Amino acid sequence: LLIFVGLGLDSSLSSQAIKALEECDEVFYEDYTSPPAVPNAEERISSQISGKPVRKVDRDFVESGSGILKVAASGHAALLSPGDPMIATTHEELRTRASRQGIATKILHGASILSALPGELGLHSYNFGRCVTVTSGPLQHTAYNTVYANLLQGLHSALLLEWDSSRKFFLSPRTAIDSLLASEKDIQYGVFGQETLVLAASRIGRGDSAIQAAKLDEFQRLELGDPPHVLVIPGRFHLTEREALGALTNKEPGWFPDNSSMVRRLSATMVDRYTKKTEAALERAREAAKKKGVRFADVFENVEAYAKDSVRFMAEGKEELAVLSIGYAEGLLDSLRFAGLLEFEW
Amino acid sequence: LLIFVGLGLDSSLSSQAIKALEECDEVFYEDYTSPPAVPNAEERISSQISGKPVRKVDRDFVESGSGILKVAASGHAALLSPGDPMIATTHEELRTRASRQGIATKILHGASILSALPGELGLHSYNFGRCVTVTSGPLQHTAYNTVYANLLQGLHSALLLEWDSSRKFFLSPRTAIDSLLASEKDIQYGVFGQETLVLAASRIGRGDSAIQAAKLDEFQRLELGDPPHVLVIPGRFHLTEREALGALTNKEPGWFPDNSSMVRRLSATMVDRYTKKTEAALERAREAAKKKGVRFADVFENVEAYAKDSVRFMAEGKEELAVLSIGYAEGLLDSLRFAGLLEFEW
Repeated sequence: LLIFVGLGLDSSLSSQAIKALEECDEVFYEDYTSPPAVPNAEERISSQISGKPVRKVDRDFVESGSGILKVAASGHAALLSPGDPMIATTHEELRTRASRQGIATKILHGASILSALPGELGLHSYNFGRCVTVTSGPLQHTAYNTVYANLLQGLHSALLLEWDSSRKFFLSPRTAIDSLLASEKDIQYGVFGQETLVLAASRIGRGDSAIQAAKLDEFQRLELGDPPHVLVIPGRFHLTEREALGALTNKEPGWFPDNSSMVRRLSATMVDRYTKKTEAALERAREAAKKKGVRFADVFENVEAYAKDSVRFMAEGKEELAVLSIGYAEGLLDSLRFAGLLEFEW
Repeated sequence: LLIFVGLGLDSSLSSQAIKALEECDEVFYEDYTSPPAVPNAEERISSQISGKPVRKVDRDFVESGSGILKVAASGHAALLSPGDPMIATTHEELRTRASRQGIATKILHGASILSALPGELGLHSYNFGRCVTVTSGPLQHTAYNTVYANLLQGLHSALLLEWDSSRKFFLSPRTAIDSLLASEKDIQYGVFGQETLVLAASRIGRGDSAIQAAKLDEFQRLELGDPPHVLVIPGRFHLTEREALGALTNKEPGWFPDNSSMVRRLSATMVDRYTKKTEAALERAREAAKKKGVRFADVFENVEAYAKDSVRFMAEGKEELAVLSIGYAEGLLDSLRFAGLLEFEW
């Protein structure tokens, strides 16, 4: 039997976990998937399970897995992890290998930062989109695009920050934001700017936990204290979210900007730009026709109608129809030039 | 002080929670946000905290909140909840009210089905999109649209099922799927059909937990056992997800269909339909021009080129440009009719 045990956010074992661990032949413990919640975690855990030794293992040991599977094949082995034990891909893979070898597995779940985070910030968990980890690379396009996709849907994004246990390295929130700003320079969807609201949740589950909210320029000067930190780029707030976040950060509920309103769909930008362009070109085409003494009333009326439709469709959220309509209007007008019937500038 | 304590998935208290609860003046317990993990939960919890009484309260009591806040204002009150205590909106609102009244609050997080679910199914938590609750209404458009939006991004969707503690009512997975099929009939994005892969996680955190995977038609005939159940509509799998899910459900990793490949963006459907229509109309327009003895070579060439561009843009994932291009091609061609230059059928 191989039992995966989550230590939650405070490295505190439940009575059920204590019972299971006391029956184990060997207890392994890793802290490479997230930092330990308390100093000397092995000793503290050991003291909760009648002094049974707790063996700290590193990523290579878990990835190889043979040391753990050997114990589990003939007896009971446990692997302890901070948070929820199954959030890490390496653990999932170890469980798959155990299943394939006919070793029974069991999971004692622990509280995870992913489920604790919304509540800590006063936000609703069903308003979060996909979560993503920011790593220490200078450009963070994956994280950037994840936040963008979430904001387009009005959703909040949880940004986990890289943790390297071998170097005791935590990616700082400031560096993470800097690399997202570098991605902004490159991609330019308008996701990150001086007005972007950033939330930080620090040391969640510990006695000195804190949450902070600031616009990006101010955020980069905030003192956040010791790691671990998690960032949230919120999307559109529900009224009760504003109230909760306001109460928790001592700000007025109305203060919090809506990051979602700052990003625009490509289709919205297109419709905006091309309806203006088409209407201006239509004006010139009408003048050119007048000058030339020709009439294309049906064409012109349709150009005008479809440009108007495009704006209306966009306002109704029918973005595909909006783009189709403005493309059609442009085509109608341009055909007169291609057919050699009229000369006018776009 | 008001302490929110999460009982996790097995109603088992951590040593830290036990210590905190033993210091409380009154301990409240609710099971309306999710069903209790064990029978007689109050008694079991009470026995873990030196026999201190545990008072079961209902939704109205928590929503009103005054009974809890009164104790918290002058002493220590605790509110126990299954899972994580802050997933519920009512609890978040109670915390906001406490903060406003100057009452300190503290959260002892518990394992939540939301963070436990990915690991139980061998899926990666960062491949999940927004989660949603399916209620007992006959149409479930919100859930339907959430799954659709997630599938378009290749993401998995967790579907929580309605639980009404006052009636001890669990929405059954079968009824939930039926109502999603009813929404499919109405909306027709192709999200739910006989080939849709559905995953069920039942009784997670308990001794008799189970996970099952089946295509929708087979799924509706599966015996899932006692509640609680959670459903997942998976999107695109990572290789390691296929392997883990296969090992856990005794299926070949290659068996699992990709639900994401079955849904199409509206833009893809548009480009597909309109390029075919435009190419056919172009053919007829060319014949009509030949018969009439007129030439619109520039127009025709551009119609052809922009229709081709549209298909290429779509293949490159540039959906807005693809729709714009096919709209433009249609407009170019149609203008000849509006200008009275050529008669042909669309």
